[in-house]
Amino acid sequence: MTKVSGYDLNNTLVKSLKGDIDPNNEVSQQDLASAHELSFHNDIKNLKGCNVYIVCVPTPVDQNKVPNLTHLIKACKDIAPYVNNDDVVVFESTVYPGATEKICIPILEEISGKTCLTDNLAKTSNIFHVGYSPERINPGDKDRNISDITKVTSGSSQTSQIIIKKIYNKIIKAGVHNAGAIKVAEAAKVLENIQRDVNIALMNEFSNLCNKIGIDTQEVIRAAKTKWNFLHFTPGLVGGHCIGVDPYYLTDLAHRENCDVDLIRTARLINEAFPVKVAQRILSKLLENEILPNKAKILICGVTFKENVTDIRNSKVKELIDELVRWNIHVSVHDPNLPISIIRENFSENIIQDLNKNNFDAIVFAVGHEQFKAISSLTIQNLCLGRQKLIIFDLKSILDKRTFSNDELEILTL
Amino acid sequence: MTKVSGYDLNNTLVKSLKGDIDPNNEVSQQDLASAHELSFHNDIKNLKGCNVYIVCVPTPVDQNKVPNLTHLIKACKDIAPYVNNDDVVVFESTVYPGATEKICIPILEEISGKTCLTDNLAKTSNIFHVGYSPERINPGDKDRNISDITKVTSGSSQTSQIIIKKIYNKIIKAGVHNAGAIKVAEAAKVLENIQRDVNIALMNEFSNLCNKIGIDTQEVIRAAKTKWNFLHFTPGLVGGHCIGVDPYYLTDLAHRENCDVDLIRTARLINEAFPVKVAQRILSKLLENEILPNKAKILICGVTFKENVTDIRNSKVKELIDELVRWNIHVSVHDPNLPISIIRENFSENIIQDLNKNNFDAIVFAVGHEQFKAISSLTIQNLCLGRQKLIIFDLKSILDKRTFSNDELEILTL
Repeated sequence: MTKVSGYDLNNTLVKSLKGDIDPNNEVSQQDLASAHELSFHNDIKNLKGCNVYIVCVPTPVDQNKVPNLTHLIKACKDIAPYVNNDDVVVFESTVYPGATEKICIPILEEISGKTCLTDNLAKTSNIFHVGYSPERINPGDKDRNISDITKVTSGSSQTSQIIIKKIYNKIIKAGVHNAGAIKVAEAAKVLENIQRDVNIALMNEFSNLCNKIGIDTQEVIRAAKTKWNFLHFTPGLVGGHCIGVDPYYLTDLAHRENCDVDLIRTARLINEAFPVKVAQRILSKLLENEILPNKAKILICGVTFKENVTDIRNSKVKELIDELVRWNIHVSVHDPNLPISIIRENFSENIIQDLNKNNFDAIVFAVGHEQFKAISSLTIQNLCLGRQKLIIFDLKSILDKRTFSNDELEILTL
Repeated sequence: MTKVSGYDLNNTLVKSLKGDIDPNNEVSQQDLASAHELSFHNDIKNLKGCNVYIVCVPTPVDQNKVPNLTHLIKACKDIAPYVNNDDVVVFESTVYPGATEKICIPILEEISGKTCLTDNLAKTSNIFHVGYSPERINPGDKDRNISDITKVTSGSSQTSQIIIKKIYNKIIKAGVHNAGAIKVAEAAKVLENIQRDVNIALMNEFSNLCNKIGIDTQEVIRAAKTKWNFLHFTPGLVGGHCIGVDPYYLTDLAHRENCDVDLIRTARLINEAFPVKVAQRILSKLLENEILPNKAKILICGVTFKENVTDIRNSKVKELIDELVRWNIHVSVHDPNLPISIIRENFSENIIQDLNKNNFDAIVFAVGHEQFKAISSLTIQNLCLGRQKLIIFDLKSILDKRTFSNDELEILTL
């Protein structure tokens, strides 16, 4: 067995993991408890003795959507003093193609006093290896474990590539794909996320048009997907720390390289604007039913960035709520996946813990949590007591319309 | 067996089909010869006695990319006098959502003097049915026959939907999906093609950036597609009469509806501009090898709009060649799928029938015909006799680089 140390700046997280609890609920308590060679640390000195460093720090964007590499730079500076001869440093954080070679390697070389091995390098002593292997975890997906997802690896030299591939092969059952050049592996990761972003943006743009000309987008998608090569994307809010962030790393690079990436930029603009579009559709429906926004009570079900996760970072539901509040709509929020304390930290709206009797004018299912799929017609009717017509906005098309078919209930999808 | 009449304005086509020859090579001579209940006509009077009319006329765009519905309107006018009570008219041509109801039905009603049945119509006599069922043929695909592709149908009333579904069910083994509303079926077809257009545009845009920063796009795609949900699109020329045309029907509608469809428009702009981008990459390579364009001899292999077809309409290879010629490059063309006469009608360039000894500076495989995949290293060397370094532009990545690996030969992909 290989000894593995987990190091993080966040001591609350480290303490929790030491107690075998993953706050993100991705790894089970049992799995953590049985990992006897795994230790967690908040003190950098514990890295001493390691010979492989895998860097998985966040690479977010700032308020102006400019890539923020400070965590990555800090990680390089923190690790560098511990890098010994023939050690291996692998980066997993999403960056733009070229960032590892341009930003990370020079820092590691300068502080460690050693040289990163490349195929052009004559010497073979006083060197270390660098690789890039993008993270491909699918948050909330309990069936597709890290070991079941093919891992792309790369390395600064052919020797490094072989070493790094061997390291990952130990734990990845699905196999390892050596991309060769680090830049190629970096580009592959960004492309994967951009492709999803663009495809969802297309559905969001198409949904805007369908809404305007009075066609049900979901019915169109249902017809289109009977074609063998149609790709089943649906309209929706694009949040989280991958799809909604990574494209900016490429647009930023493209801007510096003076290369147009209009499609990628346009997709981002559409998806960034979508929460407001959705809020406007909700407002339109309220007005159509002659409900004044400042008299309207709406319950938002689900506030995480995607279904079946507990992660609230970059959730676009927040922007949807902010827009509704801007119209003076009274918004309450409910998320069965989160403790009330976490919701309260992030939302100033009224929090509904249990779906009891209430008098909401509309309910918005903003996230497709499993729990919502099983919701009963009675629960919904009780939530909207005294309302002549119940309006449900099923943003993720999770409800079975047939179960709810009655004249007092209108289910709207994107 | 049901009697079927095929009617076309093009008498050359009708004559050919009467002789059991499909000039598009989609239906075999044997299949045509054995279809005893099938007849072909150039005279509209032969439509008399039909009770189901399936309209499959082209719906192209004009030079300014504005939808041209004249064929569709003419077809409606031509058919209308023959439409009897309870007859069925189904449109298969791609249109924007709403076109069948807004354009076709009024013409049919006015000329026939009958009414199109809708669910709101009180009367049930002196009526006809209208439906829309988008064509989903995959040109050049010999394995996926019309009968193997799920057919989307729709109808002007619920009765019409049942009748039309029944008609198609007779021949479609893969099953029929009733989309209900005509507008939904129209929208599904356009969305299917737009989705492909946008995904290829993304790869073309990405390829432009990779080219600029010196990464091999194909290697990136190879790495990315090891992810379970990556969609394997590749950069390339987007021609033909579907993907490169249909999106304009939706952008035109969106413009009239004052609804932004920036992503769809941007994808079109990228794909329209791509032949020039590819020509510029070829030019750059020639200049890098110190070959002056006016001294350069280039062979273009493949001129059809996609692989393994004989259809030259809207082929973007023509635009690629035009751009090369604009740089005074001497271009020859070769396509084993087409008779020389057809090539000559469409291209003023020198035509190469057989790949014999020659002195080309570069060879461009512009279309991925099966024949090109089997091409030998010797054939290529003979085509470029006396050239120090052979340059191959493999636009569809069909060549196995390993087969060709030698220092005198450079294979470039998009």
